[in-house]
Amino acid sequence: MAEFELIDAIARRVRRRRDVAVGIGDDAALLNPPPGYQLAITQDTLNESVHFRSGDDPEAIGCKAAAVNLSDLAAMAAEPAWCTLSLALPDADRPWLDAFLDGFTGLLAEHDVALVGGDTTRGPCSISVTLLGLVPEGQGLRRDAGKVGDDLWVTGSLGDAAAGLAGMGSGDQANYLRGRLLRPQPRIAAGLALRRHARACIDVSDGLLADLGHVLRASGVGAELWLSALPASPALQACTEREQRWQLQCAGGDDYELLFSAAPVDRVAIERLVQASGTPVARIGRLVDTPGCLISDPDGQRWQPSDLGYQHFQTT
Amino acid sequence: MAEFELIDAIARRVRRRRDVAVGIGDDAALLNPPPGYQLAITQDTLNESVHFRSGDDPEAIGCKAAAVNLSDLAAMAAEPAWCTLSLALPDADRPWLDAFLDGFTGLLAEHDVALVGGDTTRGPCSISVTLLGLVPEGQGLRRDAGKVGDDLWVTGSLGDAAAGLAGMGSGDQANYLRGRLLRPQPRIAAGLALRRHARACIDVSDGLLADLGHVLRASGVGAELWLSALPASPALQACTEREQRWQLQCAGGDDYELLFSAAPVDRVAIERLVQASGTPVARIGRLVDTPGCLISDPDGQRWQPSDLGYQHFQTT
Repeated sequence: MAEFELIDAIARRVRRRRDVAVGIGDDAALLNPPPGYQLAITQDTLNESVHFRSGDDPEAIGCKAAAVNLSDLAAMAAEPAWCTLSLALPDADRPWLDAFLDGFTGLLAEHDVALVGGDTTRGPCSISVTLLGLVPEGQGLRRDAGKVGDDLWVTGSLGDAAAGLAGMGSGDQANYLRGRLLRPQPRIAAGLALRRHARACIDVSDGLLADLGHVLRASGVGAELWLSALPASPALQACTEREQRWQLQCAGGDDYELLFSAAPVDRVAIERLVQASGTPVARIGRLVDTPGCLISDPDGQRWQPSDLGYQHFQTT
Repeated sequence: MAEFELIDAIARRVRRRRDVAVGIGDDAALLNPPPGYQLAITQDTLNESVHFRSGDDPEAIGCKAAAVNLSDLAAMAAEPAWCTLSLALPDADRPWLDAFLDGFTGLLAEHDVALVGGDTTRGPCSISVTLLGLVPEGQGLRRDAGKVGDDLWVTGSLGDAAAGLAGMGSGDQANYLRGRLLRPQPRIAAGLALRRHARACIDVSDGLLADLGHVLRASGVGAELWLSALPASPALQACTEREQRWQLQCAGGDDYELLFSAAPVDRVAIERLVQASGTPVARIGRLVDTPGCLISDPDGQRWQPSDLGYQHFQTT
């Protein structure tokens, strides 16, 4: 398979959008952003042996490469629009490529994203995706907009992906947990529903406490977190004791849920809007004056996890 | 060095632009594109052992990672604006990183580009850059706009990078050729000068004939090319015989010059405008009805190169 054949295989699967003036096949793509919108842009890369293993299902790798970027746009309340893909492969393995593209372009198509460019190179398997989205001016959700007194919310359930990574459960439960790890569902609809209601927002990729920490530092506030309110899937509940479950929910990564703050006056609107978007939400705490994060167990006792989430290049 | 420290090292070097509403440090950046402009977007990746070697000067690697992307925007006549960087490193080597960032952000700053996001991961060294630029609606230069009768032009000189890669020349000449390979100067000013004058345009990255072939196929035309008119640097002239020089000029990659077509009526305007931008230009042929590319030597005899430029995943 020559490079141009590889590009053709990609180009054939591309969704069309009317705002793409020039797509794949020129030095750069030319796009027509609508007036009155801001551009949201994110780039996330998955590397073999770090983010996935060489034997993993290529369709799931493709799906995840799209999902982690879509999740970043969801957290900004941006509507996905266009993306580029840089694909490094050690050799041109057509069945692998086809399955990868099925997963990648399949999830992008669900969110009406057009693949408009990128490149293909030889190298250790690496997938770098840049995703662009649109958000009406001033309606993007940032990490630094949390205020003392805000409710703290999270979509979906927490800890499933970490449990899936640890190989927990058996049968259908194990499949569910593993599926949450391999095929995360980016919370685009929930993010859009939160425009004009949420204040701070972030996606939970490094783990609840790690990502909450980003919001707290950026917003200059602290938080109270209630373990009894953390949402857990039936599968996670079935295969964990509560201490272990809390650990997974607080420090497990790869959930790709949205963590956000909102004024208490918006409580009813948020439950209505986000649930209308098909996404469960749970109120899990609140933002306070005192710096740091105070975690309470169901008896009102302070609790601390033994591990605080994932960092690349961590030295400790 | 922790991941956040690495991101800080990058963020500290970032050029500010007033159209960046949210830069590095959130789930995505938020940008304000000006009304009446199209967005140009390109993504190019450099991998260790493919595009550079592990012992290469990291400052030059950074410079090249910026240059190859800037060159794509030059070929669209787009003004560079924002970029994202995804950097995979096997370990967190601070001196390497600092030198890389010097080269990368240094060249971006010359072209007023703000680095607004990306990610850092662990993995074999790989640098994936997405660059966005702006072009007034309808003024982008495409590959498919060449017309029969157009003059064919190229900026600067051809073959230097390939000669540098082959280690040709000695002393100052070798340094010059090697510098053209390691620190290509993207032809941004020339690209902007060509708006409303050039028709088809492409950057010469795979080799003159390979890239001319893209223009010919996209435009549905053929070309005549005059070897006597191909621009050669004094260094290349000094260290090559003419057959060898033609080979390097026609099939050598990594020149990052602009190859473009324009109506003969624009001949004077082009020489004036492009030279006013500080870039030499040469008229090297013309577009014709007959498909393919007819290359003539100084005696009017047909000439063919023995090699046709670089492709990843080439099977032949």
